[in-house]
Amino acid sequence: MSFDPNNLTYNSAGLIPCIAQDATNGDVLMMAWMNAEAVAKTLETGKVTYWSRSRQSFWIKGESSGNVQELVDLRVDCDQDCLLALVNQTGPACHTNRRSCFYTAVRGGEETEILAPLK
Amino acid sequence: MSFDPNNLTYNSAGLIPCIAQDATNGDVLMMAWMNAEAVAKTLETGKVTYWSRSRQSFWIKGESSGNVQELVDLRVDCDQDCLLALVNQTGPACHTNRRSCFYTAVRGGEETEILAPLK
Repeated sequence: MSFDPNNLTYNSAGLIPCIAQDATNGDVLMMAWMNAEAVAKTLETGKVTYWSRSRQSFWIKGESSGNVQELVDLRVDCDQDCLLALVNQTGPACHTNRRSCFYTAVRGGEETEILAPLK
Repeated sequence: MSFDPNNLTYNSAGLIPCIAQDATNGDVLMMAWMNAEAVAKTLETGKVTYWSRSRQSFWIKGESSGNVQELVDLRVDCDQDCLLALVNQTGPACHTNRRSCFYTAVRGGEETEILAPLK
């Protein structure tokens, strides 16, 4: 069946969450939001493109930082309300300069940093 | 720092997305929603517990099906508005009887099934 971004289920703001996963080692890097046009742009360009809720504009990941996400495979979940992008990530995915945004673990009731910023 | 579920950032419905990832092979299994109490229950019981938006009730994953998610590690992202649960998944995570909900890939503009239901 032909894929149409308009057939996905978006929230009341017209957005769908997209999980970015490192295609090489399987690490979950980040989660951000796309609208239908961002989904289309991601597929057309091969550069993962989100919708920035704070800036209310397209956010071609890495466009200013160089830390681009090259799309390897885009997947849709059973309810069509969540996306999974397998990516080749250049540099850190997180704005804190860490490889992944999920660098805090909850262990024994404490927040534990498990990933240091890249040098 | 001590972890308090109430310090997470929830959406206007009081919910935060939680990505479930297979702790063994790194597969992303599903994404669902938690409220603060579901986060607390997940940590207390070690059984991943979501909030069902359709049923408006706690949803202890696998409670009726047996396809439980045993919590291995809970992680919080940099913005504290998304969770990542590493889990030991018994059986399929998806209600379609597939291991993962992300069984559809978009390839060459077509929706392609990449994962069959378990027998």
